[in-house]
Amino acid sequence: MTPPVTHAQETPTSPDVLTVDDLREESILDLVDAGDFATAQEWLRVHHVWEVVDAIDRMRPVEAVATFRLLDPERAFDVFEDLEPSGQQAILEVMRGAEFSEFVDSLAPDERARMLGELPAKVARRVLAGLSPDERAMTATLLGYPENSAGRYMTPEVVVLRENLSASAALQHVRNRGAQAETIYTLPVVDTQRRLTGVVDLRELVLADAETTVADLVVTSPPSVRATEPAERAARLMADSDILDLPVIDDAGRLLGLLTFDDADEVIEDADSEDASRQGGAQHWAGHYMAVSVLQLAKTRAVWLVLLLTVSLLTVTVAHSFEDALEQVAALALFIPLLIGTGGKVGTQASSACVRALAIGEVRPSDIARVTLREAATGLLLGAGLGVLAIGAGLFFTGLDVALVVGVSLLLICLLGALVGGLSPLAARKLNIDPALVSAPVVTTVVDVLGLVIYFLVASALLGL
Amino acid sequence: MTPPVTHAQETPTSPDVLTVDDLREESILDLVDAGDFATAQEWLRVHHVWEVVDAIDRMRPVEAVATFRLLDPERAFDVFEDLEPSGQQAILEVMRGAEFSEFVDSLAPDERARMLGELPAKVARRVLAGLSPDERAMTATLLGYPENSAGRYMTPEVVVLRENLSASAALQHVRNRGAQAETIYTLPVVDTQRRLTGVVDLRELVLADAETTVADLVVTSPPSVRATEPAERAARLMADSDILDLPVIDDAGRLLGLLTFDDADEVIEDADSEDASRQGGAQHWAGHYMAVSVLQLAKTRAVWLVLLLTVSLLTVTVAHSFEDALEQVAALALFIPLLIGTGGKVGTQASSACVRALAIGEVRPSDIARVTLREAATGLLLGAGLGVLAIGAGLFFTGLDVALVVGVSLLLICLLGALVGGLSPLAARKLNIDPALVSAPVVTTVVDVLGLVIYFLVASALLGL
Repeated sequence: MTPPVTHAQETPTSPDVLTVDDLREESILDLVDAGDFATAQEWLRVHHVWEVVDAIDRMRPVEAVATFRLLDPERAFDVFEDLEPSGQQAILEVMRGAEFSEFVDSLAPDERARMLGELPAKVARRVLAGLSPDERAMTATLLGYPENSAGRYMTPEVVVLRENLSASAALQHVRNRGAQAETIYTLPVVDTQRRLTGVVDLRELVLADAETTVADLVVTSPPSVRATEPAERAARLMADSDILDLPVIDDAGRLLGLLTFDDADEVIEDADSEDASRQGGAQHWAGHYMAVSVLQLAKTRAVWLVLLLTVSLLTVTVAHSFEDALEQVAALALFIPLLIGTGGKVGTQASSACVRALAIGEVRPSDIARVTLREAATGLLLGAGLGVLAIGAGLFFTGLDVALVVGVSLLLICLLGALVGGLSPLAARKLNIDPALVSAPVVTTVVDVLGLVIYFLVASALLGL
Repeated sequence: MTPPVTHAQETPTSPDVLTVDDLREESILDLVDAGDFATAQEWLRVHHVWEVVDAIDRMRPVEAVATFRLLDPERAFDVFEDLEPSGQQAILEVMRGAEFSEFVDSLAPDERARMLGELPAKVARRVLAGLSPDERAMTATLLGYPENSAGRYMTPEVVVLRENLSASAALQHVRNRGAQAETIYTLPVVDTQRRLTGVVDLRELVLADAETTVADLVVTSPPSVRATEPAERAARLMADSDILDLPVIDDAGRLLGLLTFDDADEVIEDADSEDASRQGGAQHWAGHYMAVSVLQLAKTRAVWLVLLLTVSLLTVTVAHSFEDALEQVAALALFIPLLIGTGGKVGTQASSACVRALAIGEVRPSDIARVTLREAATGLLLGAGLGVLAIGAGLFFTGLDVALVVGVSLLLICLLGALVGGLSPLAARKLNIDPALVSAPVVTTVVDVLGLVIYFLVASALLGL
């Protein structure tokens, strides 16, 4: 180990070190569209794989295929494996015969299985038919696990150890077998029935003395996950516990493969993107924001909007049934947007906090009683403060009686918002519904309807309407 | 490599393999509260570090300290480093003299620097004073980088290689120095001025033939990040590019340390939690949802609520200035919640999609023109569909004239919502404001006010008020 270098003076960056700042300056799309394929090839050669992936993900299919064709063959696999499914499909569709078979046979089995799960059935069948028998068997096994399960994401290509090996023999074993494995940093240890008994980190093996044995280095009872369990659960466990690769086992405890850190990163990014879409009140789509069509974008949003518009008609019904009150005291109408808007905001704050806390495991369904108390207390505190402010503001526009109605209603509506927002995600989880579906639009719609009822009831009571 | 195992039959789990399902069954809190310290110690011994961390994070400070005291000394560091700052502070406060000095000296320098940044100044000073000179210098260097920068999160304890080494000499070097390094899986290669010239994966070194040199194995121009750049940017780059550890350099390209995968996971989880809080319209707090006090919870939410309530008063003003119209056509009031509610929902959908796309790099500030077009088209499509539905619903409650007003207003309000929701995050990013602050509550407040104006203007025009 060398000592840490102290913080350096400002001097120009050496030109042969690529930093984040230097990235994403040129446009490969412009080069391809202009037919300048020589420069485009140069661009593809000097940029990192993920930059190429990002550029192709933003293109329409025809441009994506043209760009992919310009790639060096040895980079093509790495790029292909990280592309969005729509781009993968477009590229596969233009490949023919031997080229197609060789290409799909060389993909990593876990990437291939996940891709097949997202391709249209016709394309998927063609891919399976193009595989060699060994690769087809491995892919079929992975495809046998449920969508979004750990089994779909794991790599079956791992190096396993036995406890009775010496450290040097184990290292030699890793050298012999490592080239075909996706990772050698985590080395599962299994018994004669291939049951997982522990893991050894390559680090420990490399640093070990010659006389050490695998049994001395093994960490027993390592965390593991069943292949049928959700991949998101496994990935969150890995992030919480700083685990590089997580062993995946079957119901008998036999080792099936490893979930690697890069797959876990992908699982978490996808899960958080899905939560973000749903929290925004839209359906989740797998594609890239810039590549998805406007029609598709509208479609992902329309379903919830139409549903919520239908529920929102209840607000018209509620207001309609209190039309007498509205006609007697027209000033009541002025505060409707303010009151239900604020209730929706309190509800949104509570729901987004609880959805996130559930997603990362800070809150569990069994916490429902404590969450209820916490959110009720928070809602009352906020409602009391805002209610006083609202009475002051109300006096500015109208008399004390209506101002009091507004203040009292706001207190109750804030309590309502916090309870609806805080409890709905937990209730959803208990019902095995994704808590992220309890979005701001859903919470505000519910609070709009119930809040209006509260407002008119308080008005009727206090004003004697 | 061993062949992949086929999917197993359902059989009972072997008892010595801990799976995710077996976790989190008992309550350490109950054991500590009951004073059953022997069983509590057993609980702490058989559970994984992150389970212990999770349990302590949920406790009040006095229980957290009592539980921490029961831990085996060798596990205490690992647990301590992953605790929330409030728990760390409570534990440090009860430590005395030599125990305190030894403890803080043994923490990893990057974890210690981050902890110090979050502790109250008085406690932080005491920690710094307790350090040995070497450790204090290393910590001071890390603390010199801005909060949330890559420099704060990197580990300076790495093993570096030179290009002219043979693979076997390099491996021997790793063996000699590796014990003190946080990771040996990524081995940066530097020149005589300690400038980063490439990286070698330990995997390549282990699998290499004896006659290979580091120069044969090195990947030149590796991605790297400057220490002063935001850690989130570096962590997203790592996730996109499947990089295990990212070299951190100074402005002269000299190596300072490595950002490791577990730190990157933590950065991304924190950043996404912060986005989730802000998207919900609350301030972000660093603590655990179950441990934070109700007063603190209310405080994080009150700021935005009071601010938005003030802006919402504009809705009262708008309605007030159109009070004549409302008195002439009382039916207009019925549709206020429906109209502005729907506009807020369309806006929320657009903003949450754009905030997430910006966060993970799918959309860049330079895409503003394309995003405008896409969101405008989407808003018009949705508005046209919902407008027709609203006219139908309006006819049910009132006459054709008011129904038409509602339909036309809804079309315009949906366009407004999509534009406000889609463009505000990009505008925020251009102004160097966190796009996640463009939350559902902010978007709905803006759309409430502008939507009401649109509604009354359309009503005045079509009904001749």
